[in-house]
Amino acid sequence: MKENNAIKLKKIVLITGLLCLMLICDNVKAQQASWIWYPGDYSVWLSNKMQTRRTERGTFLPPFWKLYSPYPLMEFHKDFVLPGAEDASLYVEGQYNVSLDGKTIPGYPKIIHIAAGKHRISLKVYNDSSVPAIYLKSPHLVSDTSWLVTYEDKEWIDATGKTSDVSATKYMHADSWNFTDPAILPSTYHLPVRPENAVKIERKPHSLFVDFGKETFGYLKLNGIKGKGIVHVYYGESPYEAADTGRCELADKVAIDQNSGNYTFKGSRAFRYVTVYYSDNVSINNVSMLYEYSPVKQLGSFTCSDPEINKIWDVAAYTLHLNTREFFIDGIKRDRWVWSGDAYQSYLMNYYLFFDSPEVTHTLQALRGKDPITSHINTILDYTFYWFLGINDYYLYTGDKAFVEQNYQGMKTMMDFCLARRDSDGLVQGLPGDWVFIDWADGLSKQGEVSFEQVLFCRSLETVAECAKIAGDNAGAIKYADLAADIKEKIFKYYWNDQKHALVHSRIDGKPTDNVTRYANMFAIFFNYFDQAQKQDAKKYVLLNKNVPGINTPYMRFYELEALCAMGEQNYVLKEIKDYWGGMLKLGATTFWEEYNPTKKGAENYAMYGRPYGKSLCHAWGASPIYLLGKYYLGVKPASPGYHDYIVEPNLGSLQWMQGAVPTPHGKISVYCSTKQIKVSSNEGHGVLRFKSKTTPECKLGQITSKGDGVYELQLEKGKDYIINYDAI
Amino acid sequence: MKENNAIKLKKIVLITGLLCLMLICDNVKAQQASWIWYPGDYSVWLSNKMQTRRTERGTFLPPFWKLYSPYPLMEFHKDFVLPGAEDASLYVEGQYNVSLDGKTIPGYPKIIHIAAGKHRISLKVYNDSSVPAIYLKSPHLVSDTSWLVTYEDKEWIDATGKTSDVSATKYMHADSWNFTDPAILPSTYHLPVRPENAVKIERKPHSLFVDFGKETFGYLKLNGIKGKGIVHVYYGESPYEAADTGRCELADKVAIDQNSGNYTFKGSRAFRYVTVYYSDNVSINNVSMLYEYSPVKQLGSFTCSDPEINKIWDVAAYTLHLNTREFFIDGIKRDRWVWSGDAYQSYLMNYYLFFDSPEVTHTLQALRGKDPITSHINTILDYTFYWFLGINDYYLYTGDKAFVEQNYQGMKTMMDFCLARRDSDGLVQGLPGDWVFIDWADGLSKQGEVSFEQVLFCRSLETVAECAKIAGDNAGAIKYADLAADIKEKIFKYYWNDQKHALVHSRIDGKPTDNVTRYANMFAIFFNYFDQAQKQDAKKYVLLNKNVPGINTPYMRFYELEALCAMGEQNYVLKEIKDYWGGMLKLGATTFWEEYNPTKKGAENYAMYGRPYGKSLCHAWGASPIYLLGKYYLGVKPASPGYHDYIVEPNLGSLQWMQGAVPTPHGKISVYCSTKQIKVSSNEGHGVLRFKSKTTPECKLGQITSKGDGVYELQLEKGKDYIINYDAI
Repeated sequence: MKENNAIKLKKIVLITGLLCLMLICDNVKAQQASWIWYPGDYSVWLSNKMQTRRTERGTFLPPFWKLYSPYPLMEFHKDFVLPGAEDASLYVEGQYNVSLDGKTIPGYPKIIHIAAGKHRISLKVYNDSSVPAIYLKSPHLVSDTSWLVTYEDKEWIDATGKTSDVSATKYMHADSWNFTDPAILPSTYHLPVRPENAVKIERKPHSLFVDFGKETFGYLKLNGIKGKGIVHVYYGESPYEAADTGRCELADKVAIDQNSGNYTFKGSRAFRYVTVYYSDNVSINNVSMLYEYSPVKQLGSFTCSDPEINKIWDVAAYTLHLNTREFFIDGIKRDRWVWSGDAYQSYLMNYYLFFDSPEVTHTLQALRGKDPITSHINTILDYTFYWFLGINDYYLYTGDKAFVEQNYQGMKTMMDFCLARRDSDGLVQGLPGDWVFIDWADGLSKQGEVSFEQVLFCRSLETVAECAKIAGDNAGAIKYADLAADIKEKIFKYYWNDQKHALVHSRIDGKPTDNVTRYANMFAIFFNYFDQAQKQDAKKYVLLNKNVPGINTPYMRFYELEALCAMGEQNYVLKEIKDYWGGMLKLGATTFWEEYNPTKKGAENYAMYGRPYGKSLCHAWGASPIYLLGKYYLGVKPASPGYHDYIVEPNLGSLQWMQGAVPTPHGKISVYCSTKQIKVSSNEGHGVLRFKSKTTPECKLGQITSKGDGVYELQLEKGKDYIINYDAI
Repeated sequence: MKENNAIKLKKIVLITGLLCLMLICDNVKAQQASWIWYPGDYSVWLSNKMQTRRTERGTFLPPFWKLYSPYPLMEFHKDFVLPGAEDASLYVEGQYNVSLDGKTIPGYPKIIHIAAGKHRISLKVYNDSSVPAIYLKSPHLVSDTSWLVTYEDKEWIDATGKTSDVSATKYMHADSWNFTDPAILPSTYHLPVRPENAVKIERKPHSLFVDFGKETFGYLKLNGIKGKGIVHVYYGESPYEAADTGRCELADKVAIDQNSGNYTFKGSRAFRYVTVYYSDNVSINNVSMLYEYSPVKQLGSFTCSDPEINKIWDVAAYTLHLNTREFFIDGIKRDRWVWSGDAYQSYLMNYYLFFDSPEVTHTLQALRGKDPITSHINTILDYTFYWFLGINDYYLYTGDKAFVEQNYQGMKTMMDFCLARRDSDGLVQGLPGDWVFIDWADGLSKQGEVSFEQVLFCRSLETVAECAKIAGDNAGAIKYADLAADIKEKIFKYYWNDQKHALVHSRIDGKPTDNVTRYANMFAIFFNYFDQAQKQDAKKYVLLNKNVPGINTPYMRFYELEALCAMGEQNYVLKEIKDYWGGMLKLGATTFWEEYNPTKKGAENYAMYGRPYGKSLCHAWGASPIYLLGKYYLGVKPASPGYHDYIVEPNLGSLQWMQGAVPTPHGKISVYCSTKQIKVSSNEGHGVLRFKSKTTPECKLGQITSKGDGVYELQLEKGKDYIINYDAI
């Protein structure tokens, strides 16, 4: 077939035109300008600010691990095409210059005039006290994560003025967050506050005892205060703590000299109760507070036929919200630090409550810090592994490939650190300077090669192997998968004990101990490292075996109950939740605790770390019912990254009915389930509803297929409201 | 032999007493308190400040390499014994806490009460905008470099409150400088200034043309300025540059609106001439400046029978002083950055002029930055090697073992970076992103494995091997020495060309080129890699061979002339110094230049980098006569670290007489030498005077020994004034 030249020419013009249009359109898309910076640097900087706010009775108490810094000098650039001439407004945090097409614009321009056509804009920004950041906006050019950044552009010139080849310079995509207003500088970021009143104030001569009705967080405010003297403030999560002015964990004081007015304390504190002491010449009208909170939105929900479970879910949601600050922290009274193992559980709860991705990625970035790695994350062996696992889950729940790609190099160097610390058997153990944490548990052995650590190590290697594939490192994918397979083999070879029907706790000097603990066994269940027989063994001989030492922290109860749920023990787990979390409620908890041992009485419940009120009564890891109820009762979980595919497998345990919503990247999945009816709707992905029914279930929408043994499945499309009538087994 | 118990007891008491006294005395010694910080961190921070002061016509121009940050969180501690109770005053840059014997002192104490006896004091300091630093002083306890510091103390507590074992925590000795006044915070440091007047001001309508008489540096000041309008200022190192307002490198402007007063520009600039333009409504009485200078002291001196050489020495000393700022920089007009190759020459000149050790160590620290290394220093392959060589010389001249010990780890990781970038032949070449600089020279090949780079690489390996010994890394010492030996063998195997009687310039694709350049050959002479025959060959066929491309920068002339001096060519070199440096003086230079090509005429002399005034007319590397005249004419050099042993080998070249002083760690060595008499005195170390005489020399002090061939030696003791009568050959 031949074309004549005229037609050819027309085609070329048309194609060229289309290409131009596509190029332009790519820039023409309505885009959101935001402040941008080097990936991770804002998290590093902001987490330093947050983690250095801890005080103990007014004394500064910073972390004992390394804090990192942002790169002080940054290059930002972007290649783009403009359909017509435009003026771009520029805002910069730092000292800067701007080049357009390699030509520097004099001075510190605030408006950049750009002609139509193809261009490169680049900026160099120096800022040694916060994070080098820029905000740029014209109709068709905005600062966003498509910009490239580097901390060393290596762009030198030779003696003739010729510019070097910078093709070897390593660029990353810029990071942004929700800073879309140029007037709000990233360096001025702070959480919002709102005024809250006390519910009860007891007045005594020169003192007030204030109750805010529930655990809270923020800035105490003394209203209508006048006179000259000192005001001492003693905070308490319990009334005992606030009253015990000599031993409470948090205290403040201020010298007052004024005729009237209010005084708000500078430091944010966790408390429910406050004792305020003031000297003779001072009077105080009232005490209130500015409640400081993260503006994350509560998208997940859960209600059911059991009011106690509903209360537990609500208190868990409040507990998680209080501990969701600039980053996921451990507890609001102390440490207010970012702990990887604690945060790992918050990530998972977050997927069932806020689905706030930046909260997860910022926390992961803050924990990772920067190379070189000189210590485990938070100094804890297990906590390094949870960091990898956090990325694994983050990708599964959100499908955010870009994050994995940007962070793969950091995963590799983190794993290199771990690999370099293996012993002669290729296993990990605590070396000098490493903290083998596992859990707060009396007499728990940390010696030798602990099986639990190998399980987390194996899962971490699997995670890096998967991320290697996403990042296009095929050799890495094979290498890390092989290493994982080797560890998995060793887990069974070294630790499985046929007599004990379980993995033993550790090897010491190369010899397995015969100590059985719950840790490795419960992880091996929900990681699917165990086969069915091993799972049943572990359930019987470990999880349901009262002779194996129990768990006294909500932290490890999370995994213990998850393992049981993964094996269909929702009925048993519901009772455990009611006992354990209900037990805290019965003791007056308004948020869930760092540790709860039902055998302890009265003031014993508040002691920890050798201090009478050392225990945190609002600890993120206390909130796990959020996760368990969403994932294993409503039964919603992603089956492929980002809920592209998902499963809904409702399980009532012993409930009569339940209903709730699970947030997803672009919407939510709503589930109602009683013993007779299931209702599901979603605006995301493609789902499979799996349930058991004594009778043949009915649904007007879609085709229910029987999988045998009373199991049925229904394919779910988004935007449809499925109602299934069935008869629960 | 038996002792009775009474005597034994007495002895024990006596010994115990002595031990106690020694312990106490160690603390009782009159010590100087100073601000202290993590080693290198202050240099990193201050060098960022300095290197981001470059502007080009008012536009910010920062480096193209990575800038580093201090650690924001630091632990400082010290174990000590006090003879009695004392109060220590404490000053801190940052938020902090203090513990005494593991017990935290509440709040932010400014006075620490310490009982008599043995204690540990520790502080944690957070500072994210400058450098965490402390100053502490009591009669017997001061903050100094005996304190230990770490950026991760890893001191966690278990659930019972028990503190972790921190024996694996890596501590360094703190750094200090001359901050001995607690009121002067390290973060407020700035170089001193003093007012200077212009020597000539030409007045035209609305403009002034100002001449400060010589190259200078500081803040321009407009005196008695009034009215409302804009004042433009154009700086020039040459009158042409200051007059060429559209193309001069440095310019400032300020909007004025005042009745009268002075205005001092905020930015420091390099200039001799200034054009000041002001609008109709502005008038200016006078123009002066605040000269900004480093307070280093000029301890070295040189005068001789040749006035031109004296002028050259003075101008070189002034050139070096101007470029000796917070750190050794390249040039005062631009770049005002710390360049390793440039700084390396400044170190060597410094040993003969200021002997200011902190200026060297701070520059070395700033260049090294922190791990991980992602690029060569300043991106330049050769500049990484000069960094190692700088430490080699620093140790030789100062004997500062502690610096080597503190920095050995950083040398190792820097060398690891280099070793990982070797090619399959084990040699180094420029990889993508690496700048192979060598020198500014038209048409100089940077391709393949350049022999010059292998010579520097070999010397760097030798340096690390030597430092490994000092740092007690015996395995490292062997490893690096073996690697050096391997490279040295390859230098001769691959590059020595018998027909050319020289090392050739490079290998490309594994084949030696037949291109001969001066670079590798001159370094191989003064590194003593060549044997005597090779040295003579290199001198004849390379250094004195007009067909081998010449050198047009004082930078490489430094090494070329050093090689010739090392071979006794002081007579020839003196003529070269007069021609080359004298040539610049004849063109009106008041400081020495970045490049000087005697064949260039007029304005050509100011052009570089494709810009008419791109060349720096005050460049540190222009000052090498300081070094050459001190080391090879006065002939003073250390023979063992820190001038414990030294050599004085005067060589007049063609001078009638010369006299001068060379500074040493604790004093100086003074030399006078004419053709008939030599006078030497010193207050340091043990020296050997070596000289040639036609007749038998005489000296009243000490015994002169003949070494044959007219060579004589005299042993020199400190504190004696030796006068030797002789007859120069």
